[in-house]
Amino acid sequence: MPNGYNGRILRVDLTRGTTGVEAPDEALYRRYLGGGGLGAYYLLKEVPRGADPLGPDNRLIFMTSPLNGLPLSGVNRFSAVAKSPLTGGYGEAEAGGFWGPELKMAGFDGIIIQGTASSPVYLYVHDGEAELRDATAYWGQLADSVQHGLEEELGDQRIRVLQTGIAGENGVRYAAIVNQQKHFNGRAGLGAVMGAKKLKAIVCRGRKAVEPADPDGFKAVLRWFRAAYDRDADPRHLLGTAGIVRSLDAGGMLPTRNFRDGSFEQAAAISGEALRDTILVNRGTCHGCAVACKREVEVPEYGVRAEHGGPEYETIAAHGSLLGVGDLKQLAGANLKCNQYVLDSISTGVVIGFAMECYEKGILSRDDLGFDLPYGSQEGALRLIDLIARREGIGDLLADGVKVAAAKLGQGAESFALHVKGQELPMHEPRGKRSLALAYATSATGADHMEAPHDPFFQSLDAHGTSALSALGLIEPVEMLDTGPKKVKVYYYAQLVWGLYDTIGMCDFVGEPINVLTVDKLTDAVRAVTGWPVSLFELIKVSERANNMKRAFNVREGFTMADDTLPDRLFEPLENGALQGTALDRADFARMLELYYEMAGWDKQTGAPTPAKLAELDLDWFQAELADVG
Amino acid sequence: MPNGYNGRILRVDLTRGTTGVEAPDEALYRRYLGGGGLGAYYLLKEVPRGADPLGPDNRLIFMTSPLNGLPLSGVNRFSAVAKSPLTGGYGEAEAGGFWGPELKMAGFDGIIIQGTASSPVYLYVHDGEAELRDATAYWGQLADSVQHGLEEELGDQRIRVLQTGIAGENGVRYAAIVNQQKHFNGRAGLGAVMGAKKLKAIVCRGRKAVEPADPDGFKAVLRWFRAAYDRDADPRHLLGTAGIVRSLDAGGMLPTRNFRDGSFEQAAAISGEALRDTILVNRGTCHGCAVACKREVEVPEYGVRAEHGGPEYETIAAHGSLLGVGDLKQLAGANLKCNQYVLDSISTGVVIGFAMECYEKGILSRDDLGFDLPYGSQEGALRLIDLIARREGIGDLLADGVKVAAAKLGQGAESFALHVKGQELPMHEPRGKRSLALAYATSATGADHMEAPHDPFFQSLDAHGTSALSALGLIEPVEMLDTGPKKVKVYYYAQLVWGLYDTIGMCDFVGEPINVLTVDKLTDAVRAVTGWPVSLFELIKVSERANNMKRAFNVREGFTMADDTLPDRLFEPLENGALQGTALDRADFARMLELYYEMAGWDKQTGAPTPAKLAELDLDWFQAELADVG
Repeated sequence: MPNGYNGRILRVDLTRGTTGVEAPDEALYRRYLGGGGLGAYYLLKEVPRGADPLGPDNRLIFMTSPLNGLPLSGVNRFSAVAKSPLTGGYGEAEAGGFWGPELKMAGFDGIIIQGTASSPVYLYVHDGEAELRDATAYWGQLADSVQHGLEEELGDQRIRVLQTGIAGENGVRYAAIVNQQKHFNGRAGLGAVMGAKKLKAIVCRGRKAVEPADPDGFKAVLRWFRAAYDRDADPRHLLGTAGIVRSLDAGGMLPTRNFRDGSFEQAAAISGEALRDTILVNRGTCHGCAVACKREVEVPEYGVRAEHGGPEYETIAAHGSLLGVGDLKQLAGANLKCNQYVLDSISTGVVIGFAMECYEKGILSRDDLGFDLPYGSQEGALRLIDLIARREGIGDLLADGVKVAAAKLGQGAESFALHVKGQELPMHEPRGKRSLALAYATSATGADHMEAPHDPFFQSLDAHGTSALSALGLIEPVEMLDTGPKKVKVYYYAQLVWGLYDTIGMCDFVGEPINVLTVDKLTDAVRAVTGWPVSLFELIKVSERANNMKRAFNVREGFTMADDTLPDRLFEPLENGALQGTALDRADFARMLELYYEMAGWDKQTGAPTPAKLAELDLDWFQAELADVG
Repeated sequence: MPNGYNGRILRVDLTRGTTGVEAPDEALYRRYLGGGGLGAYYLLKEVPRGADPLGPDNRLIFMTSPLNGLPLSGVNRFSAVAKSPLTGGYGEAEAGGFWGPELKMAGFDGIIIQGTASSPVYLYVHDGEAELRDATAYWGQLADSVQHGLEEELGDQRIRVLQTGIAGENGVRYAAIVNQQKHFNGRAGLGAVMGAKKLKAIVCRGRKAVEPADPDGFKAVLRWFRAAYDRDADPRHLLGTAGIVRSLDAGGMLPTRNFRDGSFEQAAAISGEALRDTILVNRGTCHGCAVACKREVEVPEYGVRAEHGGPEYETIAAHGSLLGVGDLKQLAGANLKCNQYVLDSISTGVVIGFAMECYEKGILSRDDLGFDLPYGSQEGALRLIDLIARREGIGDLLADGVKVAAAKLGQGAESFALHVKGQELPMHEPRGKRSLALAYATSATGADHMEAPHDPFFQSLDAHGTSALSALGLIEPVEMLDTGPKKVKVYYYAQLVWGLYDTIGMCDFVGEPINVLTVDKLTDAVRAVTGWPVSLFELIKVSERANNMKRAFNVREGFTMADDTLPDRLFEPLENGALQGTALDRADFARMLELYYEMAGWDKQTGAPTPAKLAELDLDWFQAELADVG
């Protein structure tokens, strides 16, 4: 087995209450690598067509990467994969923190969970062993209680706890999974899958060091990073992810009032600078990462302590500008609620924004809600989080996401339900960052900002004097509002890099094009750790393979080109800000989509990977499953 | 301008008798790189649809590579590019030797020649200068006379002379171009283009050293090569290219008697071992190359001296087994004639084999020929070379190649005319090496063994313990006779590597999968020399870009999927040897071809690159030229 891998994957059958170990061969590791690559492989192999996402046939898969556990910045993320209860299609979410590395050091490369427990359990993985234990005491508890309860029960403060929350227990379709209270596998509703399986938590503890095959080669990458990276000049360290609030606002791309506006009059008050100057107490980080982009804040009036972390950009926008809320302390409170219930704060914010617009339009009344809910209603926004997590009152409807809620409400609510394939939009504006139109429309998980870099990075020249991702031959800047072939090509390549990140556990705040760890140095790291003579070409093909598996999964589930669409709102002009009057054009978008399909090797009618693309990517084994589609 | 380039391309207008210098921008160099990449770019830009290959509108282009001139083994080849008089489509041929590096050191990255001189001239390029000089004295002379005459005229033994020969002067459609008498731009009839332009020779002399941008990085590649390469264990050094004769014969894949047979009873007598043990006097090499696969032989009875070089595998098979000739000394004589007339020895041999089969079948008689011509006729074979080069007697018909000759002769001769698109087959057997079926059928230049590695290299494990080209993720051996999706994929990737070699001036006897210089080390070399942060991914895309330009050129000239075919003989069973009874299957071949088109991003009806493929490769500028095709 190559270095970087344990060669062991933990198999857990919750119905039977058993655990076992599988040993994939080296070729499987090399072809699917880790994270979403290995995860998609097992999902495609094991979950039958039409399986209920909340039933025993669904798999919940956690996969690490060969780089997890090593002290290189930005390479310690892991992936959770399952059929999504939010979209009915492929579901994946990555998280940072310390749990993935701990799983590796505990002797496993991943965990595949099947079946459903009859009563709440948790999984305790430690030094090559695994056991299922009773979790009845933790069921219905907030995240911090579960964390501390498990630490106490196991008598070990150094365990790493991954858990689903009350939202997941209650089947909220955008329930998340969290580790150490503040690192989220946020999207696709995977917390609901975990809840439905009655698996409350997975605790990891390990002491097995990860040894690179070529220690000198790996040290060279570490040395290079130390020389290349200047933390004191990195806004992600200084200001956190919220450092972009003011520039997005100035550019007219800060999602505001349910994506009607692109500028928010209180943007400065919810900016990274304001956060730094008011509530920040610490800068947190993930395993081995010098960037330390995480925030830890204290807001006593909302009960927020440093251990709860602090709001990221997505949360700040989704619960701030999107809802017309300009009070940073209240946002820390909203963040705490999402964290404690273990909710995806993006979907939660978009759902609340949808409810506010319903209220404004008279589709939801004070009677329906139990309170008034105009834009800017801080109290109403917080109360809705409680109702959603507990599926109480109007929360029961909203817990299914904006797509389902809009369909039930009717009265034109679909036109301002901001989702793709059922997953709510992240806080990036496709009318400004045009490659996001393709990203949101074509991502297998629905609207997902982790699927492609944002356009502005392709406008400027980087430190090498060429465009970002220069190693791929992207040497020509492309205008932000461009929707022509050059934009489609840049998106196609950038998406392959983003997909690689999701497969290798790389953080896009540390990798290109945002920061300094180039795709070439990442390749060097993979070579040094595994000993395989891989090239960036091979790694990009690993990413493309993963991406095609995810698409193939959806095609088998009945998704078609018609599902690769965008909410109506994005075709309406922005009502304020620097891009006031700017909208996406439907014909333009259709052209982009068709060109992208052809570039990606996807059939223009069915959206399915062509036989040639499957063959190129060694996925011909799945061809028969697609033969009767479309 | 990045290191590795002069930033100067010499433009020669023979009609006007002028020379000038052009300075492409850096982006053009990075996107098209060199060799066939830059060559195809200029050909596509400058040669109008329907241009006469032998007329003034055709361009004759010579392009070096950023690595040319450096002391790394195998990286000193250059490309000649023109519209081919043999196929009417894209023509390209690479050559090693010393001329390409000398052109670089003389201060130019390439030469673009247009127009037609009114009387014979030669071009003298020296230390940044270029002049056209009278060549009347050299017209009609054999290659060694021209070489020595120019050395004497210029008073410099260190000039490097590239020339067309008597065959090119006479418009033989498979006339070659040679440098230093023994390094050939062999294929596609480019010598006839040079002859038609009345450009007898190009003499280079320069002293400008090529300096890598990162000298230490480049030295590291040199050190690695020295450590990795063991010349005394390399059959290419010990036995030359003819070292494969015996194993091909044993495998039933030695083209024999016009491709009817796969085994030749006198194979041992024409093997690399026999050559070493009898007529070899020296092992020659190209600029900076430690492999030294070239042969220098002496055969006084045929007038062969060391300066004339010696027969390579292609010549030995095309004039030996293919014609039923088992006399190595006669083969050295045939080689000398091809060299002195500057003929492509592959096409010449295939033409003679065709004539022998015509004689056997009564399509050509003793009266037509002037002599008998059964298989094995040594004297007849040599006489035919004279007649072809001078277009005398039957040679005038045969000088147009087997396609034209067969069409004129009729009587079923087409069925054993071994060509694709008009270019004669090299000495590798597609019934055994199945990826060659795609290589021969789809190459823009017609049947061309420089387009893809031979299958057997994918069967064995290499020194890394994985398949060759492991850096591309080709980690699974594929059976030699396999024609399924895995074979098509392996060919697709391998062809992209081969195309890269033709763009970067890399020799496939030194690069993977045959020898030790891995595609990753090649990438390191390009980075170190140019200073660009290129990855193998980008270099593979440069190759794909070049390949699509070549195909686009042919599509514009009217080539369709129907031209991507193979000679009838390959669908007939081999009549002897280890593969006796083995044939290609037409339905199988059609499936391979369609899958390959789809993989390559080519329209299955027209064979043209799709708009998406053109856009991905930054070739959308050529889209309009293809809009009215097919």
